[in-house]
Amino acid sequence: MGIPKPTAERLSQLARLLEQRGKPGTPISSAEIEHLTGWPSHTIRKDISALAAESDISTNSGYDPRTLAKAIKQALGFSIETNKCCIVGLGRLGSAFLEYSGFQSSPFLLCAGFDSNVNRIEILKADFPLFPTFKMKEVISRLAIRYAILCVPPAQAQATADKLIECGVTGIANFTPSILSVPSGIEVENVSIIDALGSLAARLAAKRSLQ
Amino acid sequence: MGIPKPTAERLSQLARLLEQRGKPGTPISSAEIEHLTGWPSHTIRKDISALAAESDISTNSGYDPRTLAKAIKQALGFSIETNKCCIVGLGRLGSAFLEYSGFQSSPFLLCAGFDSNVNRIEILKADFPLFPTFKMKEVISRLAIRYAILCVPPAQAQATADKLIECGVTGIANFTPSILSVPSGIEVENVSIIDALGSLAARLAAKRSLQ
Repeated sequence: MGIPKPTAERLSQLARLLEQRGKPGTPISSAEIEHLTGWPSHTIRKDISALAAESDISTNSGYDPRTLAKAIKQALGFSIETNKCCIVGLGRLGSAFLEYSGFQSSPFLLCAGFDSNVNRIEILKADFPLFPTFKMKEVISRLAIRYAILCVPPAQAQATADKLIECGVTGIANFTPSILSVPSGIEVENVSIIDALGSLAARLAAKRSLQ
Repeated sequence: MGIPKPTAERLSQLARLLEQRGKPGTPISSAEIEHLTGWPSHTIRKDISALAAESDISTNSGYDPRTLAKAIKQALGFSIETNKCCIVGLGRLGSAFLEYSGFQSSPFLLCAGFDSNVNRIEILKADFPLFPTFKMKEVISRLAIRYAILCVPPAQAQATADKLIECGVTGIANFTPSILSVPSGIEVENVSIIDALGSLAARLAAKRSLQ
């Protein structure tokens, strides 16, 4: 049980791609997915075979996009109930997420933002309420928020993560450059522009060495 | 040849962790790395064994952090020559990266920003020059920029990526929710808050199913 992380990431992207494609009834082949994403078609077929309901997804002319998107979301643990998230730290990066449109078609619901600077909270606009940091415990437990998007300054990252976990958060998307130490049962996903560039550099270097 | 992507990502984070640790001469054990990151120590040892110079890294009391950091950077293709990057699209997210401090200790050099809105370019401040989009071709080729951080609106993502590749960019860190189609030889790393949350949700669901 448990889908490997690279497979989960590709499947999550594939679900988004199926939504962007705009042809909900037309079957999609692994060759078309390869063309759209650059992933080898055998990898795509292997990823999809990790889904329990595979037999219902495949048709003679490819995968049924609606059934495939549904099976991916089920497999990745996206329940019908939305997953509630908060943003912690509303500096330039954190406040940029306040107007990020990608949440609308996602199974995640942004429902609170926190910052220690009360002035900043009063100036910023969002479709959901913003709170001073000292209200974190009360708000997170009242709204049953389970995910946090961490955008505080690096020096405050670990202390803020500790507090979030104490409040009941189980998943942290860490946008700070700090490496977080968390108890078992808690998951952290590091999202770093430097690691993204590092991964690109490593893959390009591997390609060059093959030439 | 070629380090698997999850290994490359952990090694890239490990190199940052070694810099943050601030004890450059004290050996670090896989148990200490497990404590700091949450990765199982056998995974850490396996990752490090993927580095060519492993025999020089290990001492009786752990890994030598300076040798380890150097070996990681070599293995990941970080040359001494800095890797030049540009930001394309200076809206809220793109402009947030203008003041991101993580570049300073990284092997990447941000050296240009582009936006189609000339007013925006005049208002924003950065340590490097900002240009209108129509100068992209001239600037990217003159500065030999090879990486782009893509932060344009989703509807412009593919057209902008096509243009960047035409200008000589080989690696794109894609912060838009659009899935990009690129020719072989070009690498894309998708950085998406929704995929990060999706990955967290999948891992937490897998943990629950094991209980």
